[in-house]
Amino acid sequence: MRQAFAHRRHPYWHPNPWSNVTPMNDAGLAFASIDEIGKLFRTRKLSPVELTKLMLDRIEQLNPKVNAYLTVTAELALAQAKEAESELYAPRGRKSHRDRGPLHGIPISLKDNIYTAGIRTTAGSKILKDFIPQHDAQVVAQLKEAGVILLGKTNMHEFAYGVTSNNPHFGPVRNPWDLSRIPGGSSGGSAAAVAAGLCYGSIGTDTGGSIRIPAALCGIVGLKPTFGRVSVAGVIPLSPRLDCVGPLARSAADAALLLDPIFVRGKNGPSLQTATKSRLRQHFRLGLPEDFLSEWFSSEVEFAFDKALRVFRKMGGSLRRVSVPLLRETEDAGNQIAWAEATHYHQQAGWFPARAADYGEDVRERLELGVKVPATSYLSALEQRESFLRGLLAVMRDANLDALALPTTPIPAPLIGEETTALDSHGSGFSRRANHPTRALLLRNNRPANLAALPAISIPCGLTPDGLPVGLQLIGSVTDEALLLRIAHAFERVRPPLPHPPLTA
Amino acid sequence: MRQAFAHRRHPYWHPNPWSNVTPMNDAGLAFASIDEIGKLFRTRKLSPVELTKLMLDRIEQLNPKVNAYLTVTAELALAQAKEAESELYAPRGRKSHRDRGPLHGIPISLKDNIYTAGIRTTAGSKILKDFIPQHDAQVVAQLKEAGVILLGKTNMHEFAYGVTSNNPHFGPVRNPWDLSRIPGGSSGGSAAAVAAGLCYGSIGTDTGGSIRIPAALCGIVGLKPTFGRVSVAGVIPLSPRLDCVGPLARSAADAALLLDPIFVRGKNGPSLQTATKSRLRQHFRLGLPEDFLSEWFSSEVEFAFDKALRVFRKMGGSLRRVSVPLLRETEDAGNQIAWAEATHYHQQAGWFPARAADYGEDVRERLELGVKVPATSYLSALEQRESFLRGLLAVMRDANLDALALPTTPIPAPLIGEETTALDSHGSGFSRRANHPTRALLLRNNRPANLAALPAISIPCGLTPDGLPVGLQLIGSVTDEALLLRIAHAFERVRPPLPHPPLTA
Repeated sequence: MRQAFAHRRHPYWHPNPWSNVTPMNDAGLAFASIDEIGKLFRTRKLSPVELTKLMLDRIEQLNPKVNAYLTVTAELALAQAKEAESELYAPRGRKSHRDRGPLHGIPISLKDNIYTAGIRTTAGSKILKDFIPQHDAQVVAQLKEAGVILLGKTNMHEFAYGVTSNNPHFGPVRNPWDLSRIPGGSSGGSAAAVAAGLCYGSIGTDTGGSIRIPAALCGIVGLKPTFGRVSVAGVIPLSPRLDCVGPLARSAADAALLLDPIFVRGKNGPSLQTATKSRLRQHFRLGLPEDFLSEWFSSEVEFAFDKALRVFRKMGGSLRRVSVPLLRETEDAGNQIAWAEATHYHQQAGWFPARAADYGEDVRERLELGVKVPATSYLSALEQRESFLRGLLAVMRDANLDALALPTTPIPAPLIGEETTALDSHGSGFSRRANHPTRALLLRNNRPANLAALPAISIPCGLTPDGLPVGLQLIGSVTDEALLLRIAHAFERVRPPLPHPPLTA
Repeated sequence: MRQAFAHRRHPYWHPNPWSNVTPMNDAGLAFASIDEIGKLFRTRKLSPVELTKLMLDRIEQLNPKVNAYLTVTAELALAQAKEAESELYAPRGRKSHRDRGPLHGIPISLKDNIYTAGIRTTAGSKILKDFIPQHDAQVVAQLKEAGVILLGKTNMHEFAYGVTSNNPHFGPVRNPWDLSRIPGGSSGGSAAAVAAGLCYGSIGTDTGGSIRIPAALCGIVGLKPTFGRVSVAGVIPLSPRLDCVGPLARSAADAALLLDPIFVRGKNGPSLQTATKSRLRQHFRLGLPEDFLSEWFSSEVEFAFDKALRVFRKMGGSLRRVSVPLLRETEDAGNQIAWAEATHYHQQAGWFPARAADYGEDVRERLELGVKVPATSYLSALEQRESFLRGLLAVMRDANLDALALPTTPIPAPLIGEETTALDSHGSGFSRRANHPTRALLLRNNRPANLAALPAISIPCGLTPDGLPVGLQLIGSVTDEALLLRIAHAFERVRPPLPHPPLTA
């Protein structure tokens, strides 16, 4: 890594506003915010090429441990970095000078189900292991226009159809906080790469929690936008009526910057870049669906979640218990829709059942489930979706809520291969410890936002006594991404950031 | 019937432009066009009350034979007629004078799956035999605003789920051209009532041909609009992604007048009232999907259809053979969608399977089929729908077609209870006579327009040697209702009208 910085033109410094004279070490730089990096670029204390080399070095060193990247596009990244450098560093006034904004020169990664022209796009599958798209997904084109540098494509749950990222073809992604644990999924590689300081942000996909679950388990921020607000063109589908594309980042501010160029803004809608810069109005109100939550809750997560709620109160927010109709039904309705649509897609592609043996066991089993979903159940699930959204919006309106708050997952990161998790259940008045399917536990609190097509953000809210991150989820009303980001940002300013993950072997 | 005209204030005359001194007898009046009736109203040669009484008399006399009406709203009709009369006959300039346009005072009927406030709406079912809606369907409110007089609700295939109108709960509707034959369905009562001179038009519904099939078999005009262009609010659904509401009438001009008030017009789009008054441009081009048609074709229908094509040529139209991709697949795709959605609706309503015994055997069997449709097949059908529409529009564009022409049904009206029909098949180069399911034969040429969501009109194009009507169908491009009506109207001006049906016992 030293070598990478041998040709550095300028020393760089920590741009912390309170002390911008502290020298920043490589790790500090790797975990700096996008905004901080941008300032270093623009004061010529750091160049995009230097930063890209640092990232590529870190990937070379650490990726063998976390297995976050499936493909590292080192040459492309360096070429893009040189291009960014020449645009940014050309003297102002010269024709060649161009500042593309806050993402210019920022190295990021993309989940490997997002089409990249000329770059292998496997969707974490054996079936597509040699597939090279001829064009970019729309979000990729938009991010390139914003000047990002692509470090590579991230490992994931096969075909985004699962929440562990325990990939049978490319090996499991490992959680940077504990390499024996899963990072969550399906965007597990994206979350692990961001958490381990192997990029400054990543773009993932979320059909039932696939952005928010790994964000929570890896201690970072993940945002699933309102359905339809970010293009899914050129993204390998899982369930087209639920699929969303969104950012994973280390802070709400970084997530806002990543979301901004790929986001369909309303007429005269504010830029998301300013969302985390404008002040949060003092009173905001969060709804707590306690009856739903209390059924499944590990005590470690409960502890961190309660602490976070106290922070919200200290920030001037008020909390209100609410009862959301049909919340429990979202899991089954979401399953019916996703099972049917996923199997339909794989049938249409000619892969299932023709190449059934080429799927991992868990994905194959789910594809088989999809064959059995009756059309009438599928149609009922679509109707339940509408009823749930209507009911949820009515609760939010009646209780004057800005968002619903719930733990992103009722458990911290499970061990790799852990199919069931023991959990205390308080549902029926008495407490008992029982084993639950890990997959269902991880999905449970995430499906509601997918079914309701609403925006939701997961933010880190603490560590368990074992040092595992806990995520807190805010579900907003339609198109309230900016509000979610503002609340999350205000929360981050009060709560100290998590330490860097230990990356223990 | 004499009695009904005892208090007539004026003699009335045939308003035929070529000889408006011919006195019109009661039958002539019963079969007059809406435009003719309007002229008689406005010259005070006939009053809405007189006309309504004539209609009620005819219904009393003839409905026992055809069984077209399930409910006759005689009192309401007379009250509406008096209201229309007082509005129309109040001296111009008086506040009470009001002319609501061409439908003012015109007696019509409504298919019994369309909600009418305070009037029983059975959908031809035992389950809803005593159901009285509290509000009108949107189309009913629109037609009332246009001044129509409601004579009653028409018999139909149970829940619109079939094409024979052989109703097990209320008795079969009979074809006015031969009472031993079906009128087609599911809007069979509407078609029979219009054909028998028991109203001046009717509103039906069309999911797989339910307006066009009975229009064809009863020798009248039936129009299925572009999907979504007429409101289905307050209409008992069969398959919400296919259901359309549209008019049945004795001429294209009458159909245009009935469609006009219920039709969502484009911005600055022309009123349909003028569609049949503006001249058809001399050259129009019709596409013939001959490969599709030649497979199933009774010789009587072929003869009448070919004669009609010669008329089109004489009118200045050109014909072009085309091959439409996926045309054969529309039947199965339409079935998958309709089966699943119909069963889903009846499940949600709590009727199926709870009240399975209350359905007629054929409808129950189809509801059972719907249970077995896999969601993946349903999703494939929806995709096939899009592919078919794309392909069809491409063919129409490339061949510069105004419409596709095909017989509405490959056979004339079958006998009541005739489950299979013998037909020559020419599909694979040799001809052989085989029995085919009557239902599939009647649906075959109609499903394409439902699947493609395109407008289609069925117009009478001749009689078979046995005196049964043959229908010709034109399928237009998106929102081309006005063009279809213009072509149909121009055709009617060249072809003499059919004689009145004999109504033989």
